[in-house]
Amino acid sequence: MLFDSELDRLVRAGTPLTETPPWRALAGHWRRICGLEMRDMFAGDPARFRRFSVAIDGLLFDYSKNRITEETLGLLLALAEASGLPEAAAAMASGEAINWTERRAVLHMALRNRSNRPVLVNGRDVMPEVNAVLERMRRFATAIRDGSHRGATGLPIRTVVNIGIGGSHLGPEMITQALRPFHDGPEVRFVSNVDATDFVEAVRGLNPAETLFIVASKTFTTQETMTNAASARRWLVDGVGDASAVARHFAALSTNREAVATFGIDPENMFEFWDWVGGRYSSWSAIGLPVVVAIGFPRFEELLEGGHAMDRHFLEAPLERNIPVLMAVLGVWYANFVGAASHAVLPYDQYLARLPAYLQQADMESNGKSVDRDGRRVDYSTGPILWGEAGTNGQHAFFQLIHQGTRLVPCDFIGCARSHNPLADHHAKLIANMIAQSEALMVGRTRGEAGAELERRGLPAGQVAELLPHLVFEGNRPSNTILLDELTPRTLGTLIAAYEHKIFTQGVIWRVNSFDQWGVELGKMLAARTLDEELRLLAGDEVDLAGHDSSTAGLLRAFAEKARR
Amino acid sequence: MLFDSELDRLVRAGTPLTETPPWRALAGHWRRICGLEMRDMFAGDPARFRRFSVAIDGLLFDYSKNRITEETLGLLLALAEASGLPEAAAAMASGEAINWTERRAVLHMALRNRSNRPVLVNGRDVMPEVNAVLERMRRFATAIRDGSHRGATGLPIRTVVNIGIGGSHLGPEMITQALRPFHDGPEVRFVSNVDATDFVEAVRGLNPAETLFIVASKTFTTQETMTNAASARRWLVDGVGDASAVARHFAALSTNREAVATFGIDPENMFEFWDWVGGRYSSWSAIGLPVVVAIGFPRFEELLEGGHAMDRHFLEAPLERNIPVLMAVLGVWYANFVGAASHAVLPYDQYLARLPAYLQQADMESNGKSVDRDGRRVDYSTGPILWGEAGTNGQHAFFQLIHQGTRLVPCDFIGCARSHNPLADHHAKLIANMIAQSEALMVGRTRGEAGAELERRGLPAGQVAELLPHLVFEGNRPSNTILLDELTPRTLGTLIAAYEHKIFTQGVIWRVNSFDQWGVELGKMLAARTLDEELRLLAGDEVDLAGHDSSTAGLLRAFAEKARR
Repeated sequence: MLFDSELDRLVRAGTPLTETPPWRALAGHWRRICGLEMRDMFAGDPARFRRFSVAIDGLLFDYSKNRITEETLGLLLALAEASGLPEAAAAMASGEAINWTERRAVLHMALRNRSNRPVLVNGRDVMPEVNAVLERMRRFATAIRDGSHRGATGLPIRTVVNIGIGGSHLGPEMITQALRPFHDGPEVRFVSNVDATDFVEAVRGLNPAETLFIVASKTFTTQETMTNAASARRWLVDGVGDASAVARHFAALSTNREAVATFGIDPENMFEFWDWVGGRYSSWSAIGLPVVVAIGFPRFEELLEGGHAMDRHFLEAPLERNIPVLMAVLGVWYANFVGAASHAVLPYDQYLARLPAYLQQADMESNGKSVDRDGRRVDYSTGPILWGEAGTNGQHAFFQLIHQGTRLVPCDFIGCARSHNPLADHHAKLIANMIAQSEALMVGRTRGEAGAELERRGLPAGQVAELLPHLVFEGNRPSNTILLDELTPRTLGTLIAAYEHKIFTQGVIWRVNSFDQWGVELGKMLAARTLDEELRLLAGDEVDLAGHDSSTAGLLRAFAEKARR
Repeated sequence: MLFDSELDRLVRAGTPLTETPPWRALAGHWRRICGLEMRDMFAGDPARFRRFSVAIDGLLFDYSKNRITEETLGLLLALAEASGLPEAAAAMASGEAINWTERRAVLHMALRNRSNRPVLVNGRDVMPEVNAVLERMRRFATAIRDGSHRGATGLPIRTVVNIGIGGSHLGPEMITQALRPFHDGPEVRFVSNVDATDFVEAVRGLNPAETLFIVASKTFTTQETMTNAASARRWLVDGVGDASAVARHFAALSTNREAVATFGIDPENMFEFWDWVGGRYSSWSAIGLPVVVAIGFPRFEELLEGGHAMDRHFLEAPLERNIPVLMAVLGVWYANFVGAASHAVLPYDQYLARLPAYLQQADMESNGKSVDRDGRRVDYSTGPILWGEAGTNGQHAFFQLIHQGTRLVPCDFIGCARSHNPLADHHAKLIANMIAQSEALMVGRTRGEAGAELERRGLPAGQVAELLPHLVFEGNRPSNTILLDELTPRTLGTLIAAYEHKIFTQGVIWRVNSFDQWGVELGKMLAARTLDEELRLLAGDEVDLAGHDSSTAGLLRAFAEKARR
C-alpha cells in the first residue's frame, strides 16, 4: 500500500506530524546544539570534510559547512526512513500512481532509463514508447540539423524558436544555455511570456523562410503558448506568403493530436509524451526537442545518461551517502527546525545563470503546498522560497544580506573545475571566490579580528569603536558546495536529477503531493473572466464589474482608460 | 543633529525598539486584526480601492489588497514619523552625512535634480560638477552615436560593451533592457561576471575595430571588472594589432584618474562620480553612460526627470499619500508584525525582466544589515529576501507556492497600460492575468466554491471529497499593483526612484545604515588569499592549507586535482 510508513500511521491515528518521535527528537536536538559554531566543529574534527562529503562520477558534494553533527545526520536520516522514503522511491520507480490527486504514475526516470529495463504502468511497459519517441526526435532533429528538412521555399532552417511556458520552457531554455559550448546545430531561441514583447524580440532579424517553431503544450490549449503560436503562424504566413507553409515550419510537443492537426501542423512533426510526465520534470521527454536541435542527439543521450546515473545513485546508495537525500534532509533541517524561509542557489558558472529560475519551478511548484496526504492543512513549513543569481555577480548584489542580514539563508554553491573558456586567470578567480564565500559565511569575523583589521588600517581608536560592530560577521551560515568536473551534458543531467530527487524526498517527508499543481488553477479561471470584461472595457462598452472587489474593478477601469488614451 | 527622533531617544535610553509605543501599538493591533479577511473588508467598504490607492503622473499605486485597515495605516505612519522619517529625508536632501559609517552624504537625488537648485556638501554646491559630467557624457555619447568618434582603424563604433559589476552593472543593464524600444544608438552589451564565459559570449561575433568598452569601477580596482577589462584590452589589441588603439576603444567610469591613465585610457574619456553616490544608486550618474549611448541624451534626461518627479513627491507629499512611504511601511508591516520573510517583485512586462535582479541589490545590499545606529545587534527582522521573475512566466513556475504554500509572500505586481508591441490581444491577456492574479491571491476559493466547481465537472462524490482540500485557496494574500501608463524613460525613472525611497524609509525605521556594505568585504579578503593558494596548487606546488577548515582546504585540493586532470 502506498504511503503507509510509520509516520503515516501515527499521523492517521491522530498524532500531529511534528509531535511524532523523529520530529520531536530533531526539535530537542536543535535546542541542544543551536549554540554550536561550525568553526569550532571544524577545529575539533579534522575529518569533518571527509565525513560530510560524497564524491560520485563527475560530481563532489560537500555538505560539511552545515550546522550539523553526526547525531543530527542520524536523526534526519531516521526521519527520512520513518517517513517511508525508500518505499516511496521504489513506488515511484515501479510506476505506482504516487501522484494520487491526479491518479497518475510519476515516471520521469523512465524517460532516461538507459538500462531499458521494463517500466510498467498498469501492467504495460512504457519503454518501447519512450524509445520510439526518442528515435523520432533523433530523426527530426537530425533532418533540421543537416539541412535535409527544408522550409516551404526550399531553404534550410537556420533558427528554431521554442514556444512554451513553465515546464515547456524553463528546462529546455536552461539546458540549452548551459550547454552552449556544445551547440553545433541551428540557433535556438525561446518565447514564453504572453507579453508580445517576448515574441517580437525573439523573432527580430529572423527570416521566416528559415525559421521553424516548436509549439510545446501538453494540452495544446495553454493560453500563453497558443497566443504566441497564433502570432508565430501569422508572422510566418505573412513572411512567406503561403498558409500551407505551416506544415514545414511548425512542430508540436503535445498529447492533443486533434488540436495540433487543426492548427495546421503535420502529425509527422508532433512528438508526444504521457500523463506520467509532469511539466516541470519533462525536459527529458519530447519537451527536450529544442535541446536536441541545438546539440544533437548523441549529446542529448549523454544528458539522459547523467540523469540515469543519478537515478541509480538515488535508488541504490545508502541514505548516508545519498546526495539527493542529504540535500533534502538538510533542507528540512533548516526549514522546520532552524527556521530558514528561503534557500539560495548560486551557480558560479555563467552558463548556469538560469538554473535558479528553473529550480524555482521544479521546487516551488512541487512543494509549495499546504495540504497533506490525508487532505489536512499542515501546521509546519513546506517548500522554501528558492532564489539566486550567478556568482560572482551575486556577491556584488545580495550577499550583503546573506552575510550580515537578520535572515538565515542556506546556500548551494555550484561550480565547475574546468571551464569551457580557459582565459587568463578568470577561472581560478571565479572558483577562489566561490570557495572563499562559503568559508567567509562559515567562519565569519569576530570582534577581535575586526578590531585588529581596523587597527592595521591605522584608524583612530574612536573611529574603530564606532565602526567595529559593523565589521563583525557572525558567521555560522551554512552552505553546500557542488563541484562538477566540467559542465557537460552528462554532469548537467546528473545535477538536474539530483535536485529532482531532493524535491521528491522533501515532498515525502512533508507528506505533500509534489506532482500536482492545483494552485495554478484559480488564477487561470479568473483571468478568463477578466479578459472578457477587459476587452469590452477597451472597446468602450459599459461593463458591470460588481462581481469584483473595488480594487480589481478599479484596476480594470484604470487600465482601460489609460490604454485608450 | 542627525537621527535624534523620538524612537532614537527611547532606544538610547534603554527601551528596545520593538518595545517602544509605536511598535507595541502595531503588535497589539495585529493581534486584533489578524483574523480579518480582505474579501470581507472589500465587501464592507466599496470605497476601499479609492481610499487605498494613489495616482501620480504616469503611475497608479494600488495598495488596497493588503491586510490593513485605516487604523493599521495610521499606526504605520505614526511609526514612520516617530522614527524621524521626515527629518531623515530632509537630511539626505540637504547633503548631510547620513551614511554615517563612511561619513558621506547620500546624494543620488542631486544627480537627477532637474530644478538645479543648489545642493551643498560641506558648503559647496555639487550641481555644477553634476551638470558638467552630464554635459561631457552627452558629448561623448553623441560622438559615438553619430559616428564622429571613430575607432583606431577609422571605423565607427557599432557595439559598446559595458564592463562593470554590482552597481556598475545591474542598473544600466536593467534600464537598457527596459528601454529597448527607444534604442537608436549602437548595440550595448554587458559583461560583469569574472567567469570568462561572460566576456567570451559577450564579444562573440564582434569586430574589435568597431567595438568600444566602457570600464565602470569607482576605484578601478574591482577584481572582476579589472580582470575583464584586461581581457578586453588583449582582445582589442590582438584584433586591431595596435596597442595604442586602447585610447580610442575604451572609456572609464571611475574616480581613480591615475589607474585609468595607467590602463591606457584617454583621460578625456574618463567620466567621474563622487563618494556621495553609492554604487547601487549610481545609474543616474556617469554609470548611466551605456544607457545614454543606447537611447541618446534627451531620453536619458527624461529618465532623470522621472526620478526627480518621484523625489519631489517623496519629499513633499503627505505621508498618507506618499507612494514610497506607503510601500515601505507595508513592507515593515509584513516583515515585523505579520511574519513575512520575503517579498516578490513581479513585472508583467518582458522588458522589465531584470527589475527583480536590480532590486535585489538595491534592497538587500541596503537593508540586509543587523547592526543599528548605535552599533547594537538588532533583535528584529530587517530587509527581506527580494525575488521574482517576469509575469506571466512566474505563474507557470512559482505561483503555486504563493497561492497554496505555507509561506506568506507579499507581492508587487507591475504592469503597463500601453504596450510597445501592440500585437493581437497579447497585451489584454497579459494585463488580465496580472489583475486576475492579485484578485485570486486576495479572494481565494472557499471549500464551498471548490466543491461546487468539482461537482460542475461531474466528479463522483468520493473523488470530490478526496480532491476538495487541494482545491481550496485560503486567499487573504496581499499584493500591491503598480500600473504605469507606458514604459518610458520617464515612468521608469519614477519607478526606480520610488523603490529607492522605499528602501531609504525602511532603513530609517529599522535604524540601519542603508548606504554602506561592509558585508561584501570579508569574502573579498578571503578570496585574495584563496586565489594565491589555488594558483600554487594548480601549478603543482605543495601548499600548506592548515589555516583553513577542512572543507575549504578539501574543496581547494579537489578543484586543483580535477582541473589538472
